[in-house]
Amino acid sequence: MAPPRRASVLIMFESAELGHSIDKERYEREEPELRHALLTAQYELVKSAKFSVVILIGGVDGAGKGETLNLLNEWMDPRHIQTNAMRPVGDELYGRPQMWRFWRVLPPKGRIAIFVGSWYSQPLIKRVYGEIKPGKLDQQLEEILRFERMLSDEGTLILKYWLHLSKDGQRRRFKALAKSKATAWRVNDTDWKHLAMYKRFQRVSEHLLRTTSTAEAPWVVVEGSDERYRNLTIGTSVLAGLRKRLDQVTRPTRPTAPPMIRALDGVSVLDRLDLGQKVDKVAYGDELGTLQGELNRLTRTRRFEKLSVVAVFEGCDAAGKGGAIRRVTQALDARQYDVIPIAAPTDEEKSRPYLWRFWRQLPERGRLAVFDRSWYGRVLVERIERYCSDGDWARAYGEINDFEQQLVDADTVVVKFWLQISKDEQLRRFEERKATAFKQHKITDEDWRNRDKWDLYNVAVCEMFDRTSTDLAPWTLVEANDKYFARLKVLRTLVRTIEAAL
Amino acid sequence: MAPPRRASVLIMFESAELGHSIDKERYEREEPELRHALLTAQYELVKSAKFSVVILIGGVDGAGKGETLNLLNEWMDPRHIQTNAMRPVGDELYGRPQMWRFWRVLPPKGRIAIFVGSWYSQPLIKRVYGEIKPGKLDQQLEEILRFERMLSDEGTLILKYWLHLSKDGQRRRFKALAKSKATAWRVNDTDWKHLAMYKRFQRVSEHLLRTTSTAEAPWVVVEGSDERYRNLTIGTSVLAGLRKRLDQVTRPTRPTAPPMIRALDGVSVLDRLDLGQKVDKVAYGDELGTLQGELNRLTRTRRFEKLSVVAVFEGCDAAGKGGAIRRVTQALDARQYDVIPIAAPTDEEKSRPYLWRFWRQLPERGRLAVFDRSWYGRVLVERIERYCSDGDWARAYGEINDFEQQLVDADTVVVKFWLQISKDEQLRRFEERKATAFKQHKITDEDWRNRDKWDLYNVAVCEMFDRTSTDLAPWTLVEANDKYFARLKVLRTLVRTIEAAL
Repeated sequence: MAPPRRASVLIMFESAELGHSIDKERYEREEPELRHALLTAQYELVKSAKFSVVILIGGVDGAGKGETLNLLNEWMDPRHIQTNAMRPVGDELYGRPQMWRFWRVLPPKGRIAIFVGSWYSQPLIKRVYGEIKPGKLDQQLEEILRFERMLSDEGTLILKYWLHLSKDGQRRRFKALAKSKATAWRVNDTDWKHLAMYKRFQRVSEHLLRTTSTAEAPWVVVEGSDERYRNLTIGTSVLAGLRKRLDQVTRPTRPTAPPMIRALDGVSVLDRLDLGQKVDKVAYGDELGTLQGELNRLTRTRRFEKLSVVAVFEGCDAAGKGGAIRRVTQALDARQYDVIPIAAPTDEEKSRPYLWRFWRQLPERGRLAVFDRSWYGRVLVERIERYCSDGDWARAYGEINDFEQQLVDADTVVVKFWLQISKDEQLRRFEERKATAFKQHKITDEDWRNRDKWDLYNVAVCEMFDRTSTDLAPWTLVEANDKYFARLKVLRTLVRTIEAAL
Repeated sequence: MAPPRRASVLIMFESAELGHSIDKERYEREEPELRHALLTAQYELVKSAKFSVVILIGGVDGAGKGETLNLLNEWMDPRHIQTNAMRPVGDELYGRPQMWRFWRVLPPKGRIAIFVGSWYSQPLIKRVYGEIKPGKLDQQLEEILRFERMLSDEGTLILKYWLHLSKDGQRRRFKALAKSKATAWRVNDTDWKHLAMYKRFQRVSEHLLRTTSTAEAPWVVVEGSDERYRNLTIGTSVLAGLRKRLDQVTRPTRPTAPPMIRALDGVSVLDRLDLGQKVDKVAYGDELGTLQGELNRLTRTRRFEKLSVVAVFEGCDAAGKGGAIRRVTQALDARQYDVIPIAAPTDEEKSRPYLWRFWRQLPERGRLAVFDRSWYGRVLVERIERYCSDGDWARAYGEINDFEQQLVDADTVVVKFWLQISKDEQLRRFEERKATAFKQHKITDEDWRNRDKWDLYNVAVCEMFDRTSTDLAPWTLVEANDKYFARLKVLRTLVRTIEAAL
């Protein structure tokens, strides 16, 4: 029995250096039962599609990360498991935020995604190599905490395993692999180099695990040296996680504040807009041409290739979003932009965290994405129509600010327009649509129903402004009773904002 | 009507610069009803003692912070309101962590605490004055977020109001106050200086509000220029907050992970202890004297006056905690230490967040606090006996690590001992207690019941080690079958740790 180290002062990985093991006989007795239970739980998950599962496998090289990935795929039905062995990041992001890689592969409800190499890999490696300072590491870990909290709030079950080996254990493992021709390829120069840096890795890992072990998603440290012990431990833990959630009757929700009350005097930012502002047709034509020319020129500069643009168009029904968007896209090379109309989410989208549908549409650098309606639907239509719970939209403000912050950090220019018309002008346009044959498809019963909720929407719109008009991504209000005026203001703002960013 | 500024690009405080107002007639009509509803809600709160309420009032000087505080005290029953106008921090902390000031005054369930000048004041002021960098500010805001999340998880309702004035508004207000002899004293040089720094204040405030507006506890920005508007708005919002929580049937809880499974091979850190270690009586007497002398010398040095010591004693029943503690305190000046026995919480303690009872016992600099059992009860007895929910103890690990981090940051030396005896040795000691007249009071039925749960406790103890043995505050395991050996190890560790910190 090894004597306790450091005069019995415990280190974090202590209980994963005890030489845990399971004998063969016990393994062969317990393994079939565990597999059966896991498979049963997985099918219940698939069938109910109650939630999605994210399993992270991190830890020391040689401790069995790859083997665990294979094992879980073998024990459960791999058709409902999505495996993500994330490699060190190359340039596949093309200017998108770091987290884009992970958002892309988030599993839908009913499925399990296993990550070997996750959002933790880059911060860990960079800190160990001294490429980032402790403060930067902590900032990145806070971002990760927010990301995982969002996943958890969206109902995702997160299970995090850290496979540990002592330094001696790692050395023994590498030597064993290197000795046999069949496995020698599995140990490379980087592995030996990292072994020499073992202590540093452990120090940073300990900090990382400590900081990111939360009540919702704690790390489980598993000793990696004995395969049977490791397999049974992880299998049993995954099973416990799945069962707890499958058997849960009510979905837990975080406490939320009461909704903001509307301004008691009924005065809002929207009332202060001078909707009477107009431009005549000739002046419009002139300035439109100039602005479109400027926009075109800007998007063809060398420096534009280093950034991307996300333009968000929100506004009242019939405020002229489509027309304004067309005046923008007319100025662009068709290969350079996407217009993304946001309607009701697809089944695929509904089964993932709310922002997923927008992350998948983010532009590469040198490109523009124009969102005709956007993620703000969460705090507008979804709030008003009660498509989501109070908690869901209440936390969306913070999630959206985080999202836009990540965009800006990745050199994306974020421009957000709110097109406002008066209630009378809306009525006029609705009537006109009804009366004009080729416009009739643009007016539905829903538009009339929304109109009845004009005041409710106004409250939500103003709270949205208050909570999401950030320094980095402010809202631009567009007085849109006059279409010419609105279109010019949109183009002018876009041109000025891109100009400032170049 | 003021034209929209910055070409309609919205800033955060936009909707609090609209010149909101309520006319006198309406105010006089609505105020009595609101007061009545508030008072009714308050009495329901007092009677049910379902939760506690924390109201923060921050914002621009001159926007009515003090008046709001007075108003709420006038509208509700001030006997159940606790008012905290926090002044800039002097040296009242005497070496305790910054947050100690706020922990001390957290309200019990059933009561409302109003803070003018809160945990936000120092970070804001220091950043505006350039005394801390943006990164440090963000770190402090993250700590605040964790603190508020803890409060919220403990059931506290947090309402945060930010009273805003435009720069012109602030100037007008100061001038008006300065003009009248009766109020001129309310504007001082600092106020005028801050007015000149208005833009900087706003920039930092905006960042602060954005970062710390969460779903549980968002900031509500209120325009401060019209007193009637301000009063009705805050009153209505406080009422909405109280009512929502009073009328809530089930208490929301955050999702939590399934509990850690115990090591499948049944091997734990505790099994690796060599409990047979012994010291004979003569050697014990010699070393005890030496170590006590060293400890005494260390605690009388000049440098010791700059730090404080928190020593935690946990362990199995009958492991000899009391005896070990006495050997420590024998070496100390009686005016220098407190021994704090932790039993079941008092009513006063039960009605506050879990860690409150420990925060109130923190030592000043130059002093030692010896905890005979501690905050770890949350993840030991409270977990095993189900005195708290799964969610409560699951999040306690993180809260405890945060707590100890704050202690260490405030130059407190944290030493944590776990005294372990074998199950046989415990039986022997129990029997001896039963048989010895003057020891009989030390053995109760509960001890025997706990003994039946030996294995359950072991699992909880090991998970506690794994999750809370941090670099900053590691656990020291003490082999305690031999009391002499245990006492010497405790003293030796304490001496070495204090020595290293000096």
